[in-house]
Amino acid sequence: MKIIELHKTISESNDKDAFELKEELRKQKVLFINLMSSPGAGKTTLLSRTILDLKDEMNIGVIEADIDSDVDALKIEKTGALSIQAHTDGMCHVDAGMSKKALDELDLKNIDLVFLENVGNLICPAEYDTGAHKNVMILSIPEGDDKPLKYPLIFSKCDVLLLTKIDTINYFNFDFEKVIKRVKKLNPNILIFPVSSKTGEGMKEFEDWLKENRL
Amino acid sequence: MKIIELHKTISESNDKDAFELKEELRKQKVLFINLMSSPGAGKTTLLSRTILDLKDEMNIGVIEADIDSDVDALKIEKTGALSIQAHTDGMCHVDAGMSKKALDELDLKNIDLVFLENVGNLICPAEYDTGAHKNVMILSIPEGDDKPLKYPLIFSKCDVLLLTKIDTINYFNFDFEKVIKRVKKLNPNILIFPVSSKTGEGMKEFEDWLKENRL
Repeated sequence: MKIIELHKTISESNDKDAFELKEELRKQKVLFINLMSSPGAGKTTLLSRTILDLKDEMNIGVIEADIDSDVDALKIEKTGALSIQAHTDGMCHVDAGMSKKALDELDLKNIDLVFLENVGNLICPAEYDTGAHKNVMILSIPEGDDKPLKYPLIFSKCDVLLLTKIDTINYFNFDFEKVIKRVKKLNPNILIFPVSSKTGEGMKEFEDWLKENRL
Repeated sequence: MKIIELHKTISESNDKDAFELKEELRKQKVLFINLMSSPGAGKTTLLSRTILDLKDEMNIGVIEADIDSDVDALKIEKTGALSIQAHTDGMCHVDAGMSKKALDELDLKNIDLVFLENVGNLICPAEYDTGAHKNVMILSIPEGDDKPLKYPLIFSKCDVLLLTKIDTINYFNFDFEKVIKRVKKLNPNILIFPVSSKTGEGMKEFEDWLKENRL
């Protein structure tokens, strides 16, 4: 497992960089997915489960973006997937230039799907196109059903919302109907999958969506 | 309940603004506390409980900083405390100038303690001195015990760490000893209180600390 240091990209236009990266990856038939959430919502656990479930069908690589540490990349490595730990030099997000640098460290010829596990944060990552073809976000049950009201931008930018840790639903006040209504108001086309990485409930629906979007 | 719009402060030095704000509030005998955490860690629930527990002893005001919505200030209002909802114009943190503007909206003559509920985020809020006399952060059990490894700056800047939602400890893998060791390595003087805003467990220790720090 490799650790790389990423710094803010000096670029005229992040949107242009992101567009070019998407095109380049499309040519290489590598689906690139940006995964965002609060800290501790369970991004790494969800990725580990997804990789294990799909390992006979797809070769998956993971870029773990964090300010510090290598704990997430080490967890991913245990699944057998290729993982890179990317440190963001204190930054709260990943831009397209940073994605590109991290992707350059992976052997894309043998990879079908790359996940970028973005920095745990509901604000800054939503403001930068990472060059990913699809944006997926996690809202975990313990975080509460008011989050779409408080962080509307990120919910409006995602293709998929995963409502995770549904195995803990009995211990928290979380109103699924309210969340779905609030999210659909911001983003009518978003797909919402309730899942548990622990029990596996609902994971098939998300994994089927990944397979459908394969390039 | 009032909603105000805050914008990035144009200032030579945020640290200087913060220092002056602390001094000014000290003269007015108003203790100002900055509360930080991830989204959904339970800042508002903890504040509601604290206000209800202390309402016969202290007059408490709350500044609710959020990108959007007024759900938190409405919750605080139900406790009888003075609350202001401050929108941060999309920004992921609060600086000292923004704090000052929000404090100007409260009748400080009749207030002993003001909480700033900072934007839910473990990265950006740690980079700006808000002018608060003390920094308190929450790490909730569902977020996991690896957070001090991944977000070291915020743990190093706080006077108090509240380990919250301890009533849910049986449903999550969370190693108290590991967290305490990791946090103390970053910040040997930090005080750590395990609490549950739901059951009230441990709240007295935190509330006693607030009373000891009264100005």
